[in-house]
Amino acid sequence: MAVLKVHGSPISTATQRVLVTIIEKGLEYELLFVNLAEGEHKKEPFISLNPFGQVPAFEDGDLKLFESRAITQYIAHDYASSGTPLISFEKMPVMVNWMEVEAHHFEPVASALGWELVYKPMFGMTTDAAAVEENEAKLANVLDVYEKRLGQSKYLGGDEFTLADLHHLPYLNCLMGTPTKKIFESRPCVSAWSQDILARPSWAKVLDLQKH
Amino acid sequence: MAVLKVHGSPISTATQRVLVTIIEKGLEYELLFVNLAEGEHKKEPFISLNPFGQVPAFEDGDLKLFESRAITQYIAHDYASSGTPLISFEKMPVMVNWMEVEAHHFEPVASALGWELVYKPMFGMTTDAAAVEENEAKLANVLDVYEKRLGQSKYLGGDEFTLADLHHLPYLNCLMGTPTKKIFESRPCVSAWSQDILARPSWAKVLDLQKH
Repeated sequence: MAVLKVHGSPISTATQRVLVTIIEKGLEYELLFVNLAEGEHKKEPFISLNPFGQVPAFEDGDLKLFESRAITQYIAHDYASSGTPLISFEKMPVMVNWMEVEAHHFEPVASALGWELVYKPMFGMTTDAAAVEENEAKLANVLDVYEKRLGQSKYLGGDEFTLADLHHLPYLNCLMGTPTKKIFESRPCVSAWSQDILARPSWAKVLDLQKH
Repeated sequence: MAVLKVHGSPISTATQRVLVTIIEKGLEYELLFVNLAEGEHKKEPFISLNPFGQVPAFEDGDLKLFESRAITQYIAHDYASSGTPLISFEKMPVMVNWMEVEAHHFEPVASALGWELVYKPMFGMTTDAAAVEENEAKLANVLDVYEKRLGQSKYLGGDEFTLADLHHLPYLNCLMGTPTKKIFESRPCVSAWSQDILARPSWAKVLDLQKH
């Protein structure tokens, strides 16, 4: 088995999504640091690995992928017998349905809020209060649906922790350090789910990588 | 085998994505019309099928799904031996990578352009020229990546037509009736690919459903 190569940065949410998957699986990997501040993701050799100029990029022997959720699915399927299963073979269509919910309902509003509340201040830019208000209202609607789902099922995809939950970790963590936290905490099932998945040892290991 | 039930509208891009998949597979289905003009998608009984209040919703016996790309993946995997394969088992990770590209790079800009250039005029609203310009610039960047990919591979996922191509059909068709068409036509490989997939008999059948 080749050592998996992740080209990216531990501060990138999409890189984190891939790293937490690899750590859940207990697989050997090498993190090849891409210096975002110096724009290395917009230049060769990186853009030959990801033509969109965004981290991460991934290599497993000859296989090269660059979309974070394609990488997590590949790892979960091709290393099915290692570590945490992360996919539910008997409830696959339902799990995939909730993976799509994360991608098309949660991520657009969570990333807009992360941009306004975390990344803009980090770059010395001014937060747009109207954009925060608009996206918090959208997030509240999304989390109302999650509250109902998580009242019926411990995790989004079913009884076990799967990629449908894992894909949320980077932006959940990002928003828990902002006032948007209240929208999660005011919904009991969402709050319990969020605390549960953020407490996974794999996630602590991803956060530790930011310290180096 | 139960008859597949699709709750939706033939003018909805997400409903079209599901219908073209079912037609490619040659499966029996029933289209249960949801009247969007009367807001039926925001009320019971529909919101019990899709809690986000958006078409489509889908039933196959007891299985209920509502995200269009989860439905297409379910159909492609569970009815693998019917009709067009639509998935490449030997190149699955690469196909999934390009499905993710459609979802995270193509769809956000294509849907923004569809909203400005097709749906706003249809609803008597004014097109925002600055939003069109901004999204056309983003689309041009995305299609530059597609042009390179389609110069190396006949279809996005590999040598065969798969879900990675099919998922583009609704917004490709939508934008071909607008001035944004030029961004596709000025790229030879993108233009050939677009014409090829829009000419599939399954797509003509989906468009025919709009006439009834």
